[in-house]
Amino acid sequence: MIAAKLTKQIPSLSIKKVNPPKPEPGESLIDVRYAALNKRDDWILKGKYPGIESSVILGSDGMGYTHATGERVLINPGNKWGENERVQESDFFITGMPHAGTFAQQIAVLDSHIYPVPEYLSDIEAAALPLAGVTAFRALFSRGDLGYGEKILIAGAGGGVSSIGIKMALAAGAEVFVNSSSDEKIKKAISWGCQAGWNYKENADWAKDCLDETGGVDMVLDSAGGKTISDYIQILRPGGRLVFYGATLGPWERVQAAKIYYRQIDLRGSTMGSNTDFKKMLDFVTAHQIRPHVDRIFDLEDIHDAFSRLNDPKSFGKIVIKIPIS
Amino acid sequence: MIAAKLTKQIPSLSIKKVNPPKPEPGESLIDVRYAALNKRDDWILKGKYPGIESSVILGSDGMGYTHATGERVLINPGNKWGENERVQESDFFITGMPHAGTFAQQIAVLDSHIYPVPEYLSDIEAAALPLAGVTAFRALFSRGDLGYGEKILIAGAGGGVSSIGIKMALAAGAEVFVNSSSDEKIKKAISWGCQAGWNYKENADWAKDCLDETGGVDMVLDSAGGKTISDYIQILRPGGRLVFYGATLGPWERVQAAKIYYRQIDLRGSTMGSNTDFKKMLDFVTAHQIRPHVDRIFDLEDIHDAFSRLNDPKSFGKIVIKIPIS
Repeated sequence: MIAAKLTKQIPSLSIKKVNPPKPEPGESLIDVRYAALNKRDDWILKGKYPGIESSVILGSDGMGYTHATGERVLINPGNKWGENERVQESDFFITGMPHAGTFAQQIAVLDSHIYPVPEYLSDIEAAALPLAGVTAFRALFSRGDLGYGEKILIAGAGGGVSSIGIKMALAAGAEVFVNSSSDEKIKKAISWGCQAGWNYKENADWAKDCLDETGGVDMVLDSAGGKTISDYIQILRPGGRLVFYGATLGPWERVQAAKIYYRQIDLRGSTMGSNTDFKKMLDFVTAHQIRPHVDRIFDLEDIHDAFSRLNDPKSFGKIVIKIPIS
Repeated sequence: MIAAKLTKQIPSLSIKKVNPPKPEPGESLIDVRYAALNKRDDWILKGKYPGIESSVILGSDGMGYTHATGERVLINPGNKWGENERVQESDFFITGMPHAGTFAQQIAVLDSHIYPVPEYLSDIEAAALPLAGVTAFRALFSRGDLGYGEKILIAGAGGGVSSIGIKMALAAGAEVFVNSSSDEKIKKAISWGCQAGWNYKENADWAKDCLDETGGVDMVLDSAGGKTISDYIQILRPGGRLVFYGATLGPWERVQAAKIYYRQIDLRGSTMGSNTDFKKMLDFVTAHQIRPHVDRIFDLEDIHDAFSRLNDPKSFGKIVIKIPIS
């Protein structure tokens, strides 16, 4: 079969012929039809991810058909979470590093991590769902306790997690607000049902405007960190919570702790999700017929173009990879 | 009557004759016997507290006797919390600023905030209990969810809140660890039942040692903030939580957000407590016969010496003020 494999000390991807995987007991072979990109894959390619091993097939998201029975399935890429819903065990790992991922014609997957594709989803949408879907679901609900009628600011409208997070929060009956570096993206979010959005690139006072217009929000969902933390603390109502699943801008700078403790605010870290989170996420998106927003589809042989698009500020939603049938 | 009153734009305290308070409907007059100091009083005197008004009688903690019936009572200094247990309303205030406090021979108190003194407590201990007790109780249990058998690091052994917090956490069946700038204080905490302690002043690697010896803690209770936040994030186990009720060292510097979100850690702000927290705290200390640790007792006329002692790194526990009988 062919697959997109890491090949060098300085990570780079190349499409190669490789031996097909041999499932262990308790695993099944999936013929992959579509995969999807995540920031995680990009960080690995940029050498920024901990514990990178060369000679690995990348890719966390995927859908396809079980090789034995032809069932239409998608994959939960979070493995060995463990028994504690509160936090993953130390041997938790995401499909695609250090174990073989979905950018391949076949993959061996734990039977417990193979789910039927909800019927309303297309193959392409199904491939775009798993990692972003479970990350958004856990952050919003398992960790964030987002409730009906609450106000939430979802930072950086247009990312894989934030775009499906917007749809989930709206479906849960929240009033959803966004920020973005792009007016276009804000417009799109509003067209989905968001109340308002602010362009942080063009409006240095966006946080003050957000506070004035919302009266403060109950929750912020963020993955940027860095200096933006101060804005989010300002925007949160007393008793509010910031749930964050990333820190792409680096460590938080100078956090006004006095504004947090006096106002009983929570800052809650979240990442990926358990198999229970994954099941709940599938039930939730099915009940609300939520479809992940797909930005573009690339052939596997054009995977480098797909990564360029992932890094293009104009992209909105998920980048999907079409895997050729072997 | 006489009272310790703020008198100038640049805050200072002086003992003066003042008119006795006149209770409003729903309030009762208390003849104060003992009061106690809190850091809050000191910040007000240093001009560091928001919204300082001159001509106010300071003091949040106190016990005495109801003027009408002679019942032995203590005071919950947290007023107008509101209906939401999660967070106080914006008109919440602490007795002693901007409304008259306990450093006086009489005070008018809301009937709903007057409680019988638990019989096992001395008058002096009763005066030392309220604000530190409710702050520690809320931080440990209402906000921190401290559970039986969990490991907790209580930072800065010897403060008013941390010293009663140690006793509460031990009573709840936690394994309690401390840090301090003083070996003496660590020894005292261990004599109370703490497992171990580290001197952060003399041991730059104390956090690493703490991590090695504890294997990581489930909870940290802190009121310092500043640069120490990095140590506490390092010490917490995955899924752990930092509950903080102060930031005496100022804003948090450079917080490694990536270590928080990937390990599903919570940073939870807490302050004071609701009237419900206060009732629960009284029930808890009574059930476990917990006595606040009293450092020293000063006469009201020596209140400036009392504040000097509060700022003395050697003080351990609460500073109590004896109010002369009028």
